[in-house]
Amino acid sequence: MANEWATFGADLHLEPHGPGLREGLMNALRDAVRSGRLAAGTRLPSSRSLAVDLGVARNTVADAYAELVAEGWLTARQGSGTRVARRSEPRTAPGQGRPPGRAAAVRSVAAPPPGKPTYNLSPGTPDLASFPRSEWLKASRKALLAAPDEAFGYGDPRGRIELRTVLAEYLARARGVYARPERIVLCAGFVHGLMLMGQVLRARGVRDVAVESYGLDVHWDLLARSGLRMPALPFDERGTCTQELGSGSDGLGAVGAVLMTPAHQFPTGGALQPDRRAAAVDWARSAGGLILEDDYDGEFRYDRQPVGALQGLDPERVVYLGTASKSLAPGLRIAWMVLPEQLVDEVAAAKGGVDWMSSAPDQLTFAEFLGSGAYDRHVRAMRLRYRRRRDQLVAAVAARSPETRISGIAAGLHAVLELPEGSEESVLRAAAFQGLALLGVNRFRHPTVPRTRDALVVGYGTPSDSAWAGALEALCRVLP
Amino acid sequence: MANEWATFGADLHLEPHGPGLREGLMNALRDAVRSGRLAAGTRLPSSRSLAVDLGVARNTVADAYAELVAEGWLTARQGSGTRVARRSEPRTAPGQGRPPGRAAAVRSVAAPPPGKPTYNLSPGTPDLASFPRSEWLKASRKALLAAPDEAFGYGDPRGRIELRTVLAEYLARARGVYARPERIVLCAGFVHGLMLMGQVLRARGVRDVAVESYGLDVHWDLLARSGLRMPALPFDERGTCTQELGSGSDGLGAVGAVLMTPAHQFPTGGALQPDRRAAAVDWARSAGGLILEDDYDGEFRYDRQPVGALQGLDPERVVYLGTASKSLAPGLRIAWMVLPEQLVDEVAAAKGGVDWMSSAPDQLTFAEFLGSGAYDRHVRAMRLRYRRRRDQLVAAVAARSPETRISGIAAGLHAVLELPEGSEESVLRAAAFQGLALLGVNRFRHPTVPRTRDALVVGYGTPSDSAWAGALEALCRVLP
Repeated sequence: MANEWATFGADLHLEPHGPGLREGLMNALRDAVRSGRLAAGTRLPSSRSLAVDLGVARNTVADAYAELVAEGWLTARQGSGTRVARRSEPRTAPGQGRPPGRAAAVRSVAAPPPGKPTYNLSPGTPDLASFPRSEWLKASRKALLAAPDEAFGYGDPRGRIELRTVLAEYLARARGVYARPERIVLCAGFVHGLMLMGQVLRARGVRDVAVESYGLDVHWDLLARSGLRMPALPFDERGTCTQELGSGSDGLGAVGAVLMTPAHQFPTGGALQPDRRAAAVDWARSAGGLILEDDYDGEFRYDRQPVGALQGLDPERVVYLGTASKSLAPGLRIAWMVLPEQLVDEVAAAKGGVDWMSSAPDQLTFAEFLGSGAYDRHVRAMRLRYRRRRDQLVAAVAARSPETRISGIAAGLHAVLELPEGSEESVLRAAAFQGLALLGVNRFRHPTVPRTRDALVVGYGTPSDSAWAGALEALCRVLP
Repeated sequence: MANEWATFGADLHLEPHGPGLREGLMNALRDAVRSGRLAAGTRLPSSRSLAVDLGVARNTVADAYAELVAEGWLTARQGSGTRVARRSEPRTAPGQGRPPGRAAAVRSVAAPPPGKPTYNLSPGTPDLASFPRSEWLKASRKALLAAPDEAFGYGDPRGRIELRTVLAEYLARARGVYARPERIVLCAGFVHGLMLMGQVLRARGVRDVAVESYGLDVHWDLLARSGLRMPALPFDERGTCTQELGSGSDGLGAVGAVLMTPAHQFPTGGALQPDRRAAAVDWARSAGGLILEDDYDGEFRYDRQPVGALQGLDPERVVYLGTASKSLAPGLRIAWMVLPEQLVDEVAAAKGGVDWMSSAPDQLTFAEFLGSGAYDRHVRAMRLRYRRRRDQLVAAVAARSPETRISGIAAGLHAVLELPEGSEESVLRAAAFQGLALLGVNRFRHPTVPRTRDALVVGYGTPSDSAWAGALEALCRVLP
């Protein structure tokens, strides 16, 4: 056995020292799978023997394996060891000649109560008081004084090359994204990117885009504006049922794409399970479909390293969409798409042949901010801060409302608090009465999905530090 | 006669001293006409008697009258004196129940020659080397450090109130626009604004939007994407024939809106004549139509004060679109719409209920830049610089190609050089061969408009100071 793997470590071309060892090993394994050097089904050496082979700690290998299992690259089963996951082969281009499916009318969900509340625990907005103004201004100064004159003119529809270059490096490192600058198209926020994808999919003849059972109506409305229909994928205790893609039930047989939040389902808060990640990619390959991966807050994970992006599993089948709206601020309107090669020109054309939307000074500033390491520092600092708040939330709920089950706490800026059946509306009313802005999980339920639970979606990232204690106290007062 | 006007000066509530006297008088007269205090057809006092009445120099009054005639508020005819222009009364809401007109297929015009030219005299881009980086950074610093936290969140679809407030003041003062902050909607450039207007018009049932004989195909394509058709208004030596609006010829009978560049026709360079301004407003009122006023470079006028915006003539019938792309830089993606009251909510809804596109830091920076006077200083400095270049262009053409007639030189960043019949393409080829990027007027001709002239559209604002002499020399070499 040791012999079988004698060259394995050497084949990975790995530098076995330094702080990035685990990530280096993960990247090397991803590359080996992607390139076919490690075929599907191949059994990997045990973490112990590979650790010996590489001369590294066993935990480093075990952690890397565990991450890659979570991301869907590998599978691990008791008694069968760790193997390269099986993938189906691609078939046709997405959405070509596909029959239309059943229409999914998009519900217009009621807005939160009017008037300015005292406290805000609505999900979706980071702590705006923590925006690093001085660091941002410093980056802006450096970037603008160094920029070539042409940067102030009409720009490349893909966005500034300075930003695409540093983003490619960052996304590969931090999110396991297979990114190259020429495959990145910058956009003025996730909504702009989704708008462009809606246009491109519709132009390709796609009629149906599957969405998750819980999500944002503003995204569904946007796709509907492009003339798309949005059947919902079922949802169970293990998350979105991607194995139902192409199953023919509920209009899912004809979908040309699926919009998902694999790293951290919004709003229910779980990570898509490895087999479900695999099922999504398998469907995309066999049906010629596309996965739109909404990685809105992938940087914020508390129990271990972030789950890598689904995109790495098949960069030709997954459109990766990331944003600075949660990690920095929504007011920046900075987001990015990493596209399958075949889509780059279509998306650039949909943008209009010129960058009509995104500010060049902001792109250059963000490039400097990212390239200088200020972004990593900011994300690390915010991760600690949000984690502390999450811990305080969990402790307060346990103390004040011990019956309340809390979930979705491993990542992101919000948690889900289960409520007794039928009590969601009354709790929300009580919160509004207290001046606390709060949303229930049914606010995010797809119109065709039956109501099965009552819960609060608590955005603990939203308040400023000074408002946090008061917001938490107001929340505890309305819990059953 | 003197008695008849005894209270006229007093009625204007005018402060008869200080540097803004001419503008104050113009604003007072506009207000009096708009409010009905000065009825259509009313004969105004002579400039001499009003000057005596107000205790100001006669030239001040004469200049104000001349400006208001140019803007279409007043008419002046030999022997009949200066009178308030006659306007028709509004009829119905725009585009309601209007039959569709003839389709105008939008031509895809060939792009300029590939490869990076040595010199660039293409119109449409200001001198990017003159972007005031330090002043901009200074404004950015001040604005970002002072901004409330919520500025970094998801914003009002109309844009930041700080910017709308200073813009309203600026547009009234500098462009004669009837602007209030609540009627302004900010957008990420003119193209974004036009995209929104296309959506709104189409949703209102408009099928046809008249455009000028010469213009930008990128704008026509954009309207076509919204499902609109674009019949062209005829063009003669006095400019765009707005009197043909609603005439029933060439699909013009059914138009619900017209897109125009009244202050400085792009690219032919003239200002719309007073009677043609009046005809456009009369049509809009009687037909219930809308005028989309593209005021792309209204600040740059060299022979006298800028011609005021058409919008002031009827703020309920004109959508005013302005931009920082020519006065500052296209890379900023900052533009604004001043809307008829009835359209504000529709345009905000078309933006998506949240400001999904425009960067809040840039909006705040521009508000500070404008409010501090830095914008006025920059525009004044650029006006002098562009004027000097224009003078050098005129002198060089006169010396090197005395047969070449030059027009459109009173304003803006480009001039039109007439060429002998049939020679436009060969001159453009010669320019490309010399490494000089240059465009002909037929590049901008609407697809249904017959070819009647050969000319170059020379963007003298485009080169940096260091490239200007070489660009001018290259141009002279290719002139007949």
